[in-house]
Amino acid sequence: MSVTAPAGFRASGVACGIKAGPRADLALVATEDGRAVPAAAVFTTNKATAAPVQVSRAHLHRSGGRAAAVVLSSGNANAATGEVGRRDATRMAELAAEGVGCATDEVLVCSTGLIGYYLPMPCLEKGVPAAVADLAGGEEASLAAARAIMTTDTRAKLTLVDRGGFRVGGIAKGAAMLAPDMATMLAVLTTDASAEPEALQRLLRQAVSVSFNRLIVDGCTSTNDTVAVLASGRAGRVDEDSLLQSLTEACHDLAEQMAADAEGITRTAVIRVSGATSDHHALVAARRVAESQLVQCSLHGSDPYWGRIVSELGAAGVDFDPDRVSVAYGGVTVCRAGVAAEHDSDAVARHMSAPRVEISADLGLGSGTAAVLTTDLSPEYIAENQGTS
Amino acid sequence: MSVTAPAGFRASGVACGIKAGPRADLALVATEDGRAVPAAAVFTTNKATAAPVQVSRAHLHRSGGRAAAVVLSSGNANAATGEVGRRDATRMAELAAEGVGCATDEVLVCSTGLIGYYLPMPCLEKGVPAAVADLAGGEEASLAAARAIMTTDTRAKLTLVDRGGFRVGGIAKGAAMLAPDMATMLAVLTTDASAEPEALQRLLRQAVSVSFNRLIVDGCTSTNDTVAVLASGRAGRVDEDSLLQSLTEACHDLAEQMAADAEGITRTAVIRVSGATSDHHALVAARRVAESQLVQCSLHGSDPYWGRIVSELGAAGVDFDPDRVSVAYGGVTVCRAGVAAEHDSDAVARHMSAPRVEISADLGLGSGTAAVLTTDLSPEYIAENQGTS
Repeated sequence: MSVTAPAGFRASGVACGIKAGPRADLALVATEDGRAVPAAAVFTTNKATAAPVQVSRAHLHRSGGRAAAVVLSSGNANAATGEVGRRDATRMAELAAEGVGCATDEVLVCSTGLIGYYLPMPCLEKGVPAAVADLAGGEEASLAAARAIMTTDTRAKLTLVDRGGFRVGGIAKGAAMLAPDMATMLAVLTTDASAEPEALQRLLRQAVSVSFNRLIVDGCTSTNDTVAVLASGRAGRVDEDSLLQSLTEACHDLAEQMAADAEGITRTAVIRVSGATSDHHALVAARRVAESQLVQCSLHGSDPYWGRIVSELGAAGVDFDPDRVSVAYGGVTVCRAGVAAEHDSDAVARHMSAPRVEISADLGLGSGTAAVLTTDLSPEYIAENQGTS
Repeated sequence: MSVTAPAGFRASGVACGIKAGPRADLALVATEDGRAVPAAAVFTTNKATAAPVQVSRAHLHRSGGRAAAVVLSSGNANAATGEVGRRDATRMAELAAEGVGCATDEVLVCSTGLIGYYLPMPCLEKGVPAAVADLAGGEEASLAAARAIMTTDTRAKLTLVDRGGFRVGGIAKGAAMLAPDMATMLAVLTTDASAEPEALQRLLRQAVSVSFNRLIVDGCTSTNDTVAVLASGRAGRVDEDSLLQSLTEACHDLAEQMAADAEGITRTAVIRVSGATSDHHALVAARRVAESQLVQCSLHGSDPYWGRIVSELGAAGVDFDPDRVSVAYGGVTVCRAGVAAEHDSDAVARHMSAPRVEISADLGLGSGTAAVLTTDLSPEYIAENQGTS
């Protein structure tokens, strides 16, 4: 159970022919009665914004932060498609709106797949009504929707947080940013908690900033990234902190599933930076380490070469003193005050071979902290990404 | 002929035992008579600055921009070595100074290799005098010096520009930034042109900014990067523009040799960005494309997937309009006004299979331009970098 678990939502997933063969490629998440409810969304910061992102942003603005449905297609990103692309994305919303019985502005649109191709609209003209007809509650419907947005994902990604008298459910796709040629991280969350659009937007942004935005595989930012949430209000008003906590937990769970499903990876790693002059500096430094091809190669080879960590911290552009930094693998300090520290190398070797590695760096300058999640870089990543056909 | 071709210089390269076996690992470039001449250097911007960089910077400052020798060791970066490392680097300079007959402050020091290990000083105590004893003019001496600074390089890198009545010679090491676990890009240039230290510093910085600084393999910035130049003045005063041109050509030639020698690469690529709102914006955008793991994977697979180029341009943080960008491979436009353009796909496929690929993007916004040089990303890169042992 995921997006259909909170009261007031239905979902579906169908195959409409965007992808070759019988693979599902169109998902719909909608309110039970077709009425718009408070909604919020966070979009990619990439300026090569895909048409569905442009359209969704405009719809959310015009509807005053309300939506009755999210329609999502996979196999084609509808990105770098100009005016034709915007017309096609709007048409997808229109078709969904006709089906569920809401205004076109009350539909959000997401697409994921290859960049630079026009959507095959005859597929959508038939597919969206089929998805509307299939809308249902229950576990199967959630799973069908989650499956229909998969591209290079090997597993459907679903989450449910049920605590404090309300629920937050979610589906997502994305092998992190591992394969953004197939584009994109998409997530749709639903909740039966009641929240005003402004509060929902603020809480979603906060939840995303400490979950999806802390997940780094290759540092690429997709043209189509979207995280949307709809709040039916059926469970009544809830404490804002509780809602933030549940939203964050749902996003975090989906982000972890993405990292674990990144193709070709053999392990994930948490990079923690402390002792920075600010939390922002800590985050910039942690991202620099996490995005480093060389660090990712070391992770692949289980090599505890802390010199690369120190080098990336020094290259991050944040306050840094080479004589104050320390580095630890799995809690074992290997570098102290900028130089090699005596340590139990067997313990470090064991830790580096585990499926989850923890690398901590203390800059020794202040109280700023941050943590990001990354993966190793494997030959399979290259095999996966060297061609789009 | 390279560093010994300009009048007034000698060079040598010996094996002193830093590297295992009989491999050369210590190089010396010095003025013929041991007298200091105008010198300049450009160092890494990485704040995890290695000891030799700290020492060389201080020496150049104290000597008022004059040097009589550059001593370079390979196999150990003397980075993340704290106070001990600074003492060791200073001792290397002192040993060289005693040998060639100059002040310690008149020696620049470079090291390249693994980070986090103290230099084996007994090797240097014997090695530097041996390198001094071997100092000689002629081609063999240049080549010995170039070989002694190699780490993962497969070929020695030498250059000579002989034009306008003066010469600029150079040696370098570095498989670009492809293997900074073995650390670093190092280059030593010599010229018999006469130039004041201030002018030399300014011209070197300009030459580096359009050559080495435009070469991107993995976006990593080493702790030890150094480019140094010594000017003997034996050829007399020359026009500043001529000197800049020769320095730039020498640096550019060495940078191209590095790109071509990057392990595991199958091709190099020039990324040109035009139509940006400023040259700076163009450079930031070109670097973003060049550093992209996904673009590098496409290059490896000869895949003309321009969606990735557009996506990276949009993510570069510079002024960008998705409806105005165009992209060309080898002069064939594949994307115009932000959408797919009809084109000769056979011609593009042929170009993408060549050892040198040209990718041009026009942002359609202004007159800013820039070009950078990059390589593909291959499974061999990962094999090379997954372990340091």
